[in-house]
Amino acid sequence: MYGWRARLGLMTASGIIAPESEYWLMAPEGVSCHFTKMPFTGGGTKDIIEELKTAEKFLDEAVTLVADARPSAIALVGTGASFCGGYGYDQQLIQKMRSRIGNLPATTGASSAIAALKKVGARKISLAMPYVEDVARVGRKFIEDNGIQVVNSKWLNHRDSFEIAQIPRETIYNLAKEVDDPESDAVFISCVALFVVEIIETLEHDLKKPVVTTNQAIMWNLLRMCNINEKIEGFGELLSKY
Amino acid sequence: MYGWRARLGLMTASGIIAPESEYWLMAPEGVSCHFTKMPFTGGGTKDIIEELKTAEKFLDEAVTLVADARPSAIALVGTGASFCGGYGYDQQLIQKMRSRIGNLPATTGASSAIAALKKVGARKISLAMPYVEDVARVGRKFIEDNGIQVVNSKWLNHRDSFEIAQIPRETIYNLAKEVDDPESDAVFISCVALFVVEIIETLEHDLKKPVVTTNQAIMWNLLRMCNINEKIEGFGELLSKY
Amino acid sequence: MYGWRARLGLMTASGIIAPESEYWLMAPEGVSCHFTKMPFTGGGTKDIIEELKTAEKFLDEAVTLVADARPSAIALVGTGASFCGGYGYDQQLIQKMRSRIGNLPATTGASSAIAALKKVGARKISLAMPYVEDVARVGRKFIEDNGIQVVNSKWLNHRDSFEIAQIPRETIYNLAKEVDDPESDAVFISCVALFVVEIIETLEHDLKKPVVTTNQAIMWNLLRMCNINEKIEGFGELLSKY
Amino acid sequence: MYGWRARLGLMTASGIIAPESEYWLMAPEGVSCHFTKMPFTGGGTKDIIEELKTAEKFLDEAVTLVADARPSAIALVGTGASFCGGYGYDQQLIQKMRSRIGNLPATTGASSAIAALKKVGARKISLAMPYVEDVARVGRKFIEDNGIQVVNSKWLNHRDSFEIAQIPRETIYNLAKEVDDPESDAVFISCVALFVVEIIETLEHDLKKPVVTTNQAIMWNLLRMCNINEKIEGFGELLSKY
Amino acid sequence: MYGWRARLGLMTASGIIAPESEYWLMAPEGVSCHFTKMPFTGGGTKDIIEELKTAEKFLDEAVTLVADARPSAIALVGTGASFCGGYGYDQQLIQKMRSRIGNLPATTGASSAIAALKKVGARKISLAMPYVEDVARVGRKFIEDNGIQVVNSKWLNHRDSFEIAQIPRETIYNLAKEVDDPESDAVFISCVALFVVEIIETLEHDLKKPVVTTNQAIMWNLLRMCNINEKIEGFGELLSKY
Amino acid sequence: MYGWRARLGLMTASGIIAPESEYWLMAPEGVSCHFTKMPFTGGGTKDIIEELKTAEKFLDEAVTLVADARPSAIALVGTGASFCGGYGYDQQLIQKMRSRIGNLPATTGASSAIAALKKVGARKISLAMPYVEDVARVGRKFIEDNGIQVVNSKWLNHRDSFEIAQIPRETIYNLAKEVDDPESDAVFISCVALFVVEIIETLEHDLKKPVVTTNQAIMWNLLRMCNINEKIEGFGELLSKY
Amino acid sequence: MYGWRARLGLMTASGIIAPESEYWLMAPEGVSCHFTKMPFTGGGTKDIIEELKTAEKFLDEAVTLVADARPSAIALVGTGASFCGGYGYDQQLIQKMRSRIGNLPATTGASSAIAALKKVGARKISLAMPYVEDVARVGRKFIEDNGIQVVNSKWLNHRDSFEIAQIPRETIYNLAKEVDDPESDAVFISCVALFVVEIIETLEHDLKKPVVTTNQAIMWNLLRMCNINEKIEGFGELLSKY
Amino acid sequence: MYGWRARLGLMTASGIIAPESEYWLMAPEGVSCHFTKMPFTGGGTKDIIEELKTAEKFLDEAVTLVADARPSAIALVGTGASFCGGYGYDQQLIQKMRSRIGNLPATTGASSAIAALKKVGARKISLAMPYVEDVARVGRKFIEDNGIQVVNSKWLNHRDSFEIAQIPRETIYNLAKEVDDPESDAVFISCVALFVVEIIETLEHDLKKPVVTTNQAIMWNLLRMCNINEKIEGFGELLSKY
Repeated sequence: MYGWRARLGLMTASGIIAPESEYWLMAPEGVSCHFTKMPFTGGGTKDIIEELKTAEKFLDEAVTLVADARPSAIALVGTGASFCGGYGYDQQLIQKMRSRIGNLPATTGASSAIAALKKVGARKISLAMPYVEDVARVGRKFIEDNGIQVVNSKWLNHRDSFEIAQIPRETIYNLAKEVDDPESDAVFISCVALFVVEIIETLEHDLKKPVVTTNQAIMWNLLRMCNINEKIEGFGELLSKY
Repeated sequence: MYGWRARLGLMTASGIIAPESEYWLMAPEGVSCHFTKMPFTGGGTKDIIEELKTAEKFLDEAVTLVADARPSAIALVGTGASFCGGYGYDQQLIQKMRSRIGNLPATTGASSAIAALKKVGARKISLAMPYVEDVARVGRKFIEDNGIQVVNSKWLNHRDSFEIAQIPRETIYNLAKEVDDPESDAVFISCVALFVVEIIETLEHDLKKPVVTTNQAIMWNLLRMCNINEKIEGFGELLSKY
Repeated sequence: MYGWRARLGLMTASGIIAPESEYWLMAPEGVSCHFTKMPFTGGGTKDIIEELKTAEKFLDEAVTLVADARPSAIALVGTGASFCGGYGYDQQLIQKMRSRIGNLPATTGASSAIAALKKVGARKISLAMPYVEDVARVGRKFIEDNGIQVVNSKWLNHRDSFEIAQIPRETIYNLAKEVDDPESDAVFISCVALFVVEIIETLEHDLKKPVVTTNQAIMWNLLRMCNINEKIEGFGELLSKY
Repeated sequence: MYGWRARLGLMTASGIIAPESEYWLMAPEGVSCHFTKMPFTGGGTKDIIEELKTAEKFLDEAVTLVADARPSAIALVGTGASFCGGYGYDQQLIQKMRSRIGNLPATTGASSAIAALKKVGARKISLAMPYVEDVARVGRKFIEDNGIQVVNSKWLNHRDSFEIAQIPRETIYNLAKEVDDPESDAVFISCVALFVVEIIETLEHDLKKPVVTTNQAIMWNLLRMCNINEKIEGFGELLSKY
Repeated sequence: MYGWRARLGLMTASGIIAPESEYWLMAPEGVSCHFTKMPFTGGGTKDIIEELKTAEKFLDEAVTLVADARPSAIALVGTGASFCGGYGYDQQLIQKMRSRIGNLPATTGASSAIAALKKVGARKISLAMPYVEDVARVGRKFIEDNGIQVVNSKWLNHRDSFEIAQIPRETIYNLAKEVDDPESDAVFISCVALFVVEIIETLEHDLKKPVVTTNQAIMWNLLRMCNINEKIEGFGELLSKY
Repeated sequence: MYGWRARLGLMTASGIIAPESEYWLMAPEGVSCHFTKMPFTGGGTKDIIEELKTAEKFLDEAVTLVADARPSAIALVGTGASFCGGYGYDQQLIQKMRSRIGNLPATTGASSAIAALKKVGARKISLAMPYVEDVARVGRKFIEDNGIQVVNSKWLNHRDSFEIAQIPRETIYNLAKEVDDPESDAVFISCVALFVVEIIETLEHDLKKPVVTTNQAIMWNLLRMCNINEKIEGFGELLSKY
Repeated sequence: MYGWRARLGLMTASGIIAPESEYWLMAPEGVSCHFTKMPFTGGGTKDIIEELKTAEKFLDEAVTLVADARPSAIALVGTGASFCGGYGYDQQLIQKMRSRIGNLPATTGASSAIAALKKVGARKISLAMPYVEDVARVGRKFIEDNGIQVVNSKWLNHRDSFEIAQIPRETIYNLAKEVDDPESDAVFISCVALFVVEIIETLEHDLKKPVVTTNQAIMWNLLRMCNINEKIEGFGELLSKY
Repeated sequence: MYGWRARLGLMTASGIIAPESEYWLMAPEGVSCHFTKMPFTGGGTKDIIEELKTAEKFLDEAVTLVADARPSAIALVGTGASFCGGYGYDQQLIQKMRSRIGNLPATTGASSAIAALKKVGARKISLAMPYVEDVARVGRKFIEDNGIQVVNSKWLNHRDSFEIAQIPRETIYNLAKEVDDPESDAVFISCVALFVVEIIETLEHDLKKPVVTTNQAIMWNLLRMCNINEKIEGFGELLSKY
């Protein structure tokens, strides 16, 4: 049986297509990934900050669904709601999720990223994002509110999740190299909708510092919360060293 | 980008844990699998036939969610509703799904199994199922109503989807060997909740006839409906020859 | 010729099916494994403690049979008789075996487990067992009588050897994680009838401490008694480091 | 669990060390091998024909022991008793074994060899044996009584099973080449105590005809009797084609 | 020494970046690729047809340069000039090239594509192009003037070579599937600036007909003109069968 | 797309055939190599020193051509012009190249070799060259003018680039061993026209000191100037350690 | 033990260095190669035809030496003496060799080449040789005297064996392509001193006909004379098909 | 060309069959082995000490023959003559060899073994030999005369070289384990006629100390004398560490 070591329950937005590929790629032997979707595509013309905040209203149902797979831990595979709502709001979301699954471990993309950055010892970071400026601004604020200094940041001004999935690796690679400031201890590439885990190691070779991405950080956080402490090669030092 | 060749939209029951592992295992290069869940576990004491028929009421929302991944084709990863409702009902479900996604290809587990069995040239089959008798009975009837004779059938009397996922390979292997009648042209192992694709080839070696399972049949049907005609090795002759 | 480096003579109970697979899997180049059986299945309704003690009466004949393969060392592949009889009795069994094979090295599962736990430096252990409570109790006592503190223990309440062989890896994995106490230096999973060697390394990654199982301990003890000091990868640090 | 496809129960003589290595080498995925021993070494000065006939008296107990592993089929891994007793006696042994295991399939080395030779279409064979002349003579007679003509035969004059295990591959290879008569359809290398399966393919390349050995024939017969029809590469065309 | 079997001399436009990767990928053991550049990027606002025709004036110098590598055969890695000038002009270019290298074999992208399409037996083709309409139109005409019927064609309307190199594989894959007409014997994907050789085999699996691309056709033509007749796997049936 | 991490623009002489093979062999994942040629073969009877100095007049056009591939860095793949012109002249060439590509990184073979030798900590070197004496003499002077002492040097007296490409590995291997002086910290094998990167590691094993070659030094310098800091195995410690 | 299937006794000239590498490369599992040397280098200014004929006087001693390795077959690894002496003389040499080794199989390079060419069905051949004209002339005559027509021949005019060993693969490859006449059924590359077996397959791909070399022909002849009939991949169709 | 890094000239006795297999197995990339034979088989009834001393009279001719392969170093692949003649005599043999090859490096088995044992730091050794007692005695004396204490020794009493080649690995493995004295720093297994290099690593794992054999020591000595300092895996720490 797949998932004999752990089943992970994962809730993500319907217009986001990267996570399923990325989580199955990173999952070690005996860990399976169980996804359900909440309605959100990032497209359209509504105020995106307002729209992101609505995730909460779909979260309850999504948690209930993934709980049926009897997961060892669950995650909201997204950062937008947390960035928009801020630190306290993010903690509330996590508590709400945990309360519906008998207090098993639960996390969000935003919380996992903060935990990962702290784990790799990053006090100052460079921050790369595909987002539009509004989301980029609250993302940066969220990170700094959590006590990590953002010494440089750049964003690509995409709004639609599907469009973000289509950003070529050359663009992400160059964005990360350009945003990287010699002062920063790590580079954080935010956004669960980006296909990026396959170039993390290359970036780390070239930048000579840890590179954290949201999906990688969620996977790491879920595994370690379940006491799956195996070192996983190929997706950056967060998973291969910590 | 993963899924450059096709993205498959897949709707399944929340208590069923086998499909995500099995579909990613079978997916060829460039094909990605996007799942959402509908509430159903098979557990409890309600009349299971009645319960299975309720799938329909969750299907609309599920189709809407997977449609956001811009899939090339979609499937209801389940057979229960179709078995209980019968041939005409199954066709209605498919039409309903298609109508919500601009007439892209759509299918169900039940329809895919019938198509697969016909493709491998099976006019008489042996039928293995994990189900309780009520479901086994309607399953058998559905197949025969589609013009395929069931020369022998056996069932294991499980009701709960999670329990079905835990059936060891030895049990499934032996069930298939025991149910196999020399008269049958193929063996069909029904139920999307079973972990079974990894022993299909072994069974085909030993039984010397095609072995069809529901998840394998759905994957085959989705790929061929998208004109992905690559032969896939390792999961039985349905995928490696047709 | 296989076995040019050593032939191992192994006596086990007739209803126990795991050892042959596990020993051939662990055996390094040039080591062959020669088994004979003694009647015992663990099933039935007799007092299991009484029944285990009868092993002794079949042991002489079994030793005589494996001696014909001109082994370098031999082992009683079982722990029950030793656990029930206690430390002194275990030593007598070993002496008796040695006396029939010209004082070549001989051991039991119980003695090998104690030696292995001491080798990995474990003074306090967590103890996982498939047994019924009566056997679990004497097992725990045997270990503590040998000077190793058992800080936590759990058992699954199985009596029949064949049933024990069918316990899925998910169950054993979770049992080991649940029984593991932060205070313990190692986890010991007792019982030669369990299929477990293939998950030892995974457990060690996740628990971050040595994991000893009975078959692994017997293999290690036999090899080292024959001065086969090669480090064997894949079955836990007992074989890869000591 | 190993042996999920079939467990094979195997009874052999205590002084014979080749079979355990050879059967595990040939066993396909999911098949496990469970051995017990009967006292016999071939050494000493007793009349070997008389001694071989005593196997029968140990057979009952051996069958009872391997039956506890719940095998799918069993075999007497030896040819001596059958060769000495003749065709009718061999059939009686098989019946006796079957009667103790609920009529599951059972066989002997002698019967399996005959079946294998007939399967590869051999009406005339060349016969290579490690035995002393007395055994060689009855072996040859047994084969001819089963309707297969022995056009040439050679033997190495060994009596002790352990000595037979030490015969180097060069000797067996040359013996087979020397005994091979252009008239023969196949070469049969008799004796379960010989290490020979690893050179069967080489011999078949060089002799350009099927080469059958006793252990290979038993393994083939057991698998096919259990309807394990997978073709196995590396041990001659009996297993790779039939 | 690399290139002991043949050195290929290749002249291409300076703004085209795909060929060097693609030719080294396809080159069999002992064949090396030697490139020089002629000024052209496809960008800007000049009449592209006029601009393409100027290739001729740089060709002489380019041929002189690659000739110093003592090539076995040479090619103009481009199709634009030939398409714009038409069949007779293309033949003149080839003659001119040959006259400067002692009549060694020489070819162009346009001629190689025609030869390849004829080799795979295509009398009717579907034609996919990244070009702007003007170039697409002359391309189509060139092919039809060579006696091959174009039953369907589509173009992506790109002008700049660098932009063409960035077209993702999903876009090219879908373009080929959409343009493919059931009547056509083959699909031709024109343009040396496209990265496409790595998906040729996937397209052939899915379309069930030969897929020819310009760089693949040039490589095939050069090799076969040098009597390098090895079948090369991985880049479509043109190279693996003809 | 190839070259997503960096495209390298490379200008070399038309009669030099080694670089294309060697650079593609050394290029890490995501780095592509784009070559153009300048007229020079080394053959003939003109004063080679005068001839080498003419490279400059072709350089401008060559830089303009490789610039169209939008490279991250460029190099003059040659040492002759720099050796003949001396240190100041080499710096002028580099400045001139940079001025035409918007000040992106640019280098020459001569400068890269000096940088590489300094990087591996070489203050005294042994120098092996295929050149005729005139070129060997200016080469040696260039190195010493850059502050590195040449404790021993040998040359093979070849003038024609094509002839240099044909020097067998045995000759280069022996030349390097013979020229190596125990006092030297490294061996430098000069000349971009030599096929030598595949034996660098062997030479380093046997000489127990770093071995630098011109193409290896240029590749290393280009990568590190682009901040591609991945360690590359197989071509000497310059690329695997620095 | 190496050589359990056959030991080959090989006598060659002291200045010829290719055979030891080539025979060990071609030798299948279980076949070992045992060489001794006879004095001859091909160098100097003596009449080479006269010198080659002296081989005979060293042959007796050489045969006696290789006989001590208890070979299954032996060969004179050379063609010169046979070519110079002609068909009858070659047969005498073979008889002489056989008479000293108890009539075991023996052969020469010349005889093996003829046998090989006949085996592949060649009635007309193209003939490539490194020799000086005198040897080339007698070589050609020898072949024609054996009933095989030489439709075209070329030679490289080398006399010294060591010089022949240094001929690069490019030269041999091109020689074979140039000498190949469309009329010929096969190409024969004569001379045991050439390193050539590694490009036989490449030549066969490109010439689309069998390519025979002397060392390959001797190895094939020795193996088949010992009834080692395994097909060997990688060195041309003589060894892989016949 | 094989042997581009070094050609080794090797002179051995005609009845000794192990070295050719063993040297080609150990030879690193670019090193080739060129053998000639001197008459000696070890068989018969002559005084073996007297017979071994006659090697000298064949040595001159053998050196002359291997010299024609233009070797980088040569060795007398044997120990008998040196053991019988003693230290001074061994040195004379070496001098004699060197004088015939222009003072290139030359060695014997006896000298190489002493050098190897000293290299691994062995002051006290255990000594295993296949020889008859007379040879064993002088072998032991030779080692002690070279300043290495032999704390234990055993011999198998074989005289004939061919018989020595047939000693099974089990016998050699057990001999080495039995002779090993805890006091010894290393085990030396003497005799070039033994097949032993493939079990050196296993013995080192099990004995936990360096194991030196004669062929391994000669190979190591030849390579290091030619400054081929690559570490070779698989044949003991002499070649992998020194």
